[in-house]
Amino acid sequence: MTPTAPRPETLRRPGGRTARIRTQVLDAVRAELGEHGYDGLTMDAVAARAGVHRATVYRRWGDVGGLLADVLDAAGDDDWQPSETGSLQGDLAALNHEIQAALTAQPPIVAALIAASFRSEKADHAQRRLWEDRYARCETIVSRAVRRGELPPRTDARRLLIAATAPLYHQLVLLRTPPDPHLPDHAARTAALAASAGAFATPPPADDT
Amino acid sequence: MTPTAPRPETLRRPGGRTARIRTQVLDAVRAELGEHGYDGLTMDAVAARAGVHRATVYRRWGDVGGLLADVLDAAGDDDWQPSETGSLQGDLAALNHEIQAALTAQPPIVAALIAASFRSEKADHAQRRLWEDRYARCETIVSRAVRRGELPPRTDARRLLIAATAPLYHQLVLLRTPPDPHLPDHAARTAALAASAGAFATPPPADDT
Repeated sequence: MTPTAPRPETLRRPGGRTARIRTQVLDAVRAELGEHGYDGLTMDAVAARAGVHRATVYRRWGDVGGLLADVLDAAGDDDWQPSETGSLQGDLAALNHEIQAALTAQPPIVAALIAASFRSEKADHAQRRLWEDRYARCETIVSRAVRRGELPPRTDARRLLIAATAPLYHQLVLLRTPPDPHLPDHAARTAALAASAGAFATPPPADDT
Repeated sequence: MTPTAPRPETLRRPGGRTARIRTQVLDAVRAELGEHGYDGLTMDAVAARAGVHRATVYRRWGDVGGLLADVLDAAGDDDWQPSETGSLQGDLAALNHEIQAALTAQPPIVAALIAASFRSEKADHAQRRLWEDRYARCETIVSRAVRRGELPPRTDARRLLIAATAPLYHQLVLLRTPPDPHLPDHAARTAALAASAGAFATPPPADDT
């Protein structure tokens, strides 16, 4: 749940054999997950596909939950930043298009990881760490809009970002409706209009502080 | 996925022994699910708890997915209607408070049913039927607001309802953040402000029709 949780020791030697094995194993997890989903994911299949001794996989990752958690941690271990388009609505729309693309990609690895977070506590925690990290990085969308004068300085960035992105997750992950190609832009516009109307403004600090 | 799927035959004789057995069995499913979650839910435990012969449970419901689907179908088999408060924002807030209460209830039956929809295709289809039915019933919130003059006649009711409710599902079901007591009202206000700003207005029909 916390973005400061320690990373697995496999990260300590980024260029060495340990890192190579991690790459091979996590690639195999993603491939198996994309082909067979959570129910078909086994330690032995991952080891065989990765060409890594199964004892190594068991020792380093423990179980399927450990493998999934490491795939999610690895997904957050990048330099991703939200696109900068010059407007709040444009930035939110670009973000939503990325989310929709990830949730509807084939093979459905992101969707399978989210589904797995309902099955494995380790995957659940890692999925929450990843989302927390992504939303934290996206707060720059709001601070840029504040600097441009599009939003008041006291804007609740997280609420705005949740409002803009939640309809995509709701429709694609929970309601499981067919992807609506207009939804990324529409949800971005809705959140930007609500923001302009003051929906995410927070009250100034009390006078007596 | 479709709300017109046939109901199980157990519904055909609402007052008889068949209906009594269904009530006992579905009560037992809810109790087992609340106590043990999907992983602890078995046909035998349900039969034992319901005091119904296990052969009867297997014959009528087939498997755990069949039991879950019937619990979800039974949940939609009521006369629930959204509260009428006199304003769009008030109606959406009342709806969101109901959703937040259901998603955070103890034992966590609604949350367990949503989680089960990632495991069982039958539960998945039944959960989607239930949501479709609930959102369809909620469209009256929008038509009342149109009649009061709060919204333009051409308002996309479903998009408005999704925008108003999605943040609750996103935070409680996917991000799994602690419940925010202000979120039901805040998400309702956000959607109402966006609606006032024209976010859900649909274009008039083309002239050449």
